[in-house]
Amino acid sequence: MNVGVLLFENFETLDVFGPVEILGRLKDFYTISFYSLQGGLIRNQHGVEISTEKLESDSNNLDLFIIPGGQGTRKEVDNRALIDSIRRISLLSKYVLTVCTGSALLAQTGLLDNRKATSNKRVFEWVTGYGKSVNWIKHARWTVEDKYYTSSGVSAGMDMTFGFLSDVHGLEFARKAAFEIEYNWSEDKANDNFCNQ
Amino acid sequence: MNVGVLLFENFETLDVFGPVEILGRLKDFYTISFYSLQGGLIRNQHGVEISTEKLESDSNNLDLFIIPGGQGTRKEVDNRALIDSIRRISLLSKYVLTVCTGSALLAQTGLLDNRKATSNKRVFEWVTGYGKSVNWIKHARWTVEDKYYTSSGVSAGMDMTFGFLSDVHGLEFARKAAFEIEYNWSEDKANDNFCNQ
Repeated sequence: MNVGVLLFENFETLDVFGPVEILGRLKDFYTISFYSLQGGLIRNQHGVEISTEKLESDSNNLDLFIIPGGQGTRKEVDNRALIDSIRRISLLSKYVLTVCTGSALLAQTGLLDNRKATSNKRVFEWVTGYGKSVNWIKHARWTVEDKYYTSSGVSAGMDMTFGFLSDVHGLEFARKAAFEIEYNWSEDKANDNFCNQ
Repeated sequence: MNVGVLLFENFETLDVFGPVEILGRLKDFYTISFYSLQGGLIRNQHGVEISTEKLESDSNNLDLFIIPGGQGTRKEVDNRALIDSIRRISLLSKYVLTVCTGSALLAQTGLLDNRKATSNKRVFEWVTGYGKSVNWIKHARWTVEDKYYTSSGVSAGMDMTFGFLSDVHGLEFARKAAFEIEYNWSEDKANDNFCNQ
């Protein structure tokens, strides 16, 4: 499967590179590319500066589209050109995965309307304001409905990615992938230790 | 503290960006820079391509030096120029943290001799071959001796980084940092679920 990861200024580091680590190792199944609206180097607040392709170019063949969160979503949620691209590419992709506040960007497209979704617990009110018709689930490590996967804050994106692998390739496949990177996978998507604390 | 992260071709994605996520958020305490032996864009097998500075330039003022692992270590462990740089910068740094097979590179400098260290469980024999006088601990999420921190495979680098924060700033500080990224931190460095399986 072709995996496209969306980047924008001030994306959250682990939102991106957690899923990229997990899928990137599975070379027989996944090939990863990074995209941004304009292409070129995209920088974040952690000093990470990474090469990207232009989102419009060849990004119509994506099987998986990954939308991270981060401080940058505060600005990008009002970036009409980006939201339109996210909508178009999400409709064409086989699966769409959001991490953390990335669900605010996807909610803004309308594609999460009447579907389950979650997000970072510490900015939950802000995110949910962008999807009044979304079935927001606060207590969840991640959610799945139809082709849309959404995770809670930052690290939850890794648990969701293993959950995705489990759905697609089976539980033992996902467990093996987690074992190989010595990751203590939280297998139950309803097991959320960060809600109501 | 100035944090320098060493990159080389085919570094392991999460070895780098797990610790970078954790330290990068703590802007009042840590500033992160990426280095490679020659500088410029460094690429890995997951399609990640990231900007780096030349290792020799201003990297003498590092408080923290982070050495990741990955497939690239198989080649770099015999790169004399890199090993010499790692040795020099490690001696000048206040703390040195290795993730996964990064401990093979540090062991090759001789600086781990007669000190505790660990590494990835699946390639433990290969790594330990580069440090005959190192006190290798197989059953460990991470180890600490003097200024040297070493972690087990990939994801263990995150637990080690929180352990480092706990040592420097206190346990509650580390717990709060883990909570903010919704990370289920494995607090006990002796709690290793990936040994002898």
